[in-house]
Amino acid sequence: VTPEDLAVYLVTDPVYPGTRTVADVCLEAVQAGVRIVQLRDKQASTRSLVEQARALKASLGPLGARVLINDRVDVALAAGADGVHLGQDDLDLRDARRLLGPAAIVGVSVLTPQQARAAERDGASYLAASPVFGTPTKPEAADTLGLEGLRRLRAVRLPLVAIGGIKSDNATEVVAAGADGVAVVSAIMAAEDVPAACRALARAVAEGRRARRAPGS
Amino acid sequence: VTPEDLAVYLVTDPVYPGTRTVADVCLEAVQAGVRIVQLRDKQASTRSLVEQARALKASLGPLGARVLINDRVDVALAAGADGVHLGQDDLDLRDARRLLGPAAIVGVSVLTPQQARAAERDGASYLAASPVFGTPTKPEAADTLGLEGLRRLRAVRLPLVAIGGIKSDNATEVVAAGADGVAVVSAIMAAEDVPAACRALARAVAEGRRARRAPGS
Repeated sequence: VTPEDLAVYLVTDPVYPGTRTVADVCLEAVQAGVRIVQLRDKQASTRSLVEQARALKASLGPLGARVLINDRVDVALAAGADGVHLGQDDLDLRDARRLLGPAAIVGVSVLTPQQARAAERDGASYLAASPVFGTPTKPEAADTLGLEGLRRLRAVRLPLVAIGGIKSDNATEVVAAGADGVAVVSAIMAAEDVPAACRALARAVAEGRRARRAPGS
Repeated sequence: VTPEDLAVYLVTDPVYPGTRTVADVCLEAVQAGVRIVQLRDKQASTRSLVEQARALKASLGPLGARVLINDRVDVALAAGADGVHLGQDDLDLRDARRLLGPAAIVGVSVLTPQQARAAERDGASYLAASPVFGTPTKPEAADTLGLEGLRRLRAVRLPLVAIGGIKSDNATEVVAAGADGVAVVSAIMAAEDVPAACRALARAVAEGRRARRAPGS
């Protein structure tokens, strides 16, 4: 995974798309430049997850996007997805890497530099700084990183995506603080105009990168 | 898996053990003759499931018991469990068999002879006739097999365990109707005296087998 792949990273949620399907929103997002889609559906049965993952891989893979599965290595293996994203309560990274093999993408959510260093040591493909801000998707999250916590995670050299409460109007400062890109749920899943939402996020990320390169400006 | 392995089959549930741990109850049950324990905990995180599965395998494996994981092939692979048990909404049997390999135990819950034949064709190790009776554990189950539905599943030659509302006082008729054994949750997990509950179930199963061999009596 390159930092560029992480620029705008979509995490799915079955509650947002309204009359559209999750698959429709993902396809629109990838057509608008998103390169990684993480399938996340904590309520779905395993069978439904595999079916959803296969459908996403079939529709998005030919466009060059990668499909990751939240938490479920079994679903990733069964569906031939590109990898998984692991939280700190999910499968241990070393187990996931062993089961998925060296070529799979295995991302890990981290809140502290210690977690980030452990994930780097154990073979993570990228890190997700999570959560940067509070979010209705994960109301149980007690701690948020803020921009200062995000900066501290930059000690690790792995590609780093930021998640949690990020919209196009704060993506610039998140990237300026050190993230390579932004992962979003509602900012794309709930958008009326998905391509416009993706483009707005991409512009904000590009602006953040410019600000990082020219910190005095 | 032999029919004898299925005689008394324990499915765990985190809500029942009270002051004891699930692991304590499983160990007592295996010491009292149970040969298969299925770890089932729909609320646990993946990490917790792997930890629970490893602990069960470490404590029960040396006693000759097998540890299966409900639904989660990833957990079974990570923990080195003996296999999985799949419902009709879980991973497809063919995917599970492919991921786990030919030596793993892969059981499948079935309600109809069609599902039973499909599971036999696709490489199931054993079948679970589920649910035979109504049960508080799965209140959402709309249909129950009853003894007549259970008899119809005997058309398939795979080892067959019955589950759903089974106690020592109805295990005999369930086995007489064709099951090789009985899978229980609360009849063991909620028992004050776990070894006594296991022995009572084993006696009832043995009586059912005698009745099956002498159907005129």
